[in-house]
Amino acid sequence: MSDCIFCKIANKEVPSEIVYEDDRVIAFKDINPVAPVHILIIPKQHISDMTAVTEAEAGLIGDIHLAAVKIAKEKGIDQTGFRLVNNCKEDGGQVVMHLHYHLIGGRKLGVKI
Amino acid sequence: MSDCIFCKIANKEVPSEIVYEDDRVIAFKDINPVAPVHILIIPKQHISDMTAVTEAEAGLIGDIHLAAVKIAKEKGIDQTGFRLVNNCKEDGGQVVMHLHYHLIGGRKLGVKI
Repeated sequence: MSDCIFCKIANKEVPSEIVYEDDRVIAFKDINPVAPVHILIIPKQHISDMTAVTEAEAGLIGDIHLAAVKIAKEKGIDQTGFRLVNNCKEDGGQVVMHLHYHLIGGRKLGVKI
Repeated sequence: MSDCIFCKIANKEVPSEIVYEDDRVIAFKDINPVAPVHILIIPKQHISDMTAVTEAEAGLIGDIHLAAVKIAKEKGIDQTGFRLVNNCKEDGGQVVMHLHYHLIGGRKLGVKI
């Protein structure tokens, strides 16, 4: 999508602090981190949100989660723990309409939703 | 795992309000809901947490997410939105050591972590 900021980041048209990349997935630092580790993990392919993921694309979700664990290991938070969050649409608090997961850690996280 | 409460729920040895079930995944109401819709989605197979998911098991994560969207549709929150959360280990706030995703919705969710 030509007007999608996360597509532009995936295509390196907009700079970001990339921490992980493979053929299907890219991850970069959130510019407004809420914890010492706050990474956004996205499919390179444009998918607007969780409800738009087809059965054929569901493998991408597994890829994103494997990437999350790799990043958590590299950041040294795979033993202390972390949170992986998908905000879907308005009630979920999704701001950018390109599927993304927040990987958050590096401190004890609260439980308020 | 004989002493795992979520394995017991998956095996119907402990009652729960089941809202979805297929061959690999089962979902039930959280007993301490934080929103009008608060469902826990788990693999039937015992996996302690996100970091224990192998590459061969990654497809299960896609299954869990497809199940989440099906449940969201059934609960009427697929258009308004929702949040899907995995708490991993202590810093993430994981309480039961059987991989589970929180599907939360039915109201506008906050952003405090």
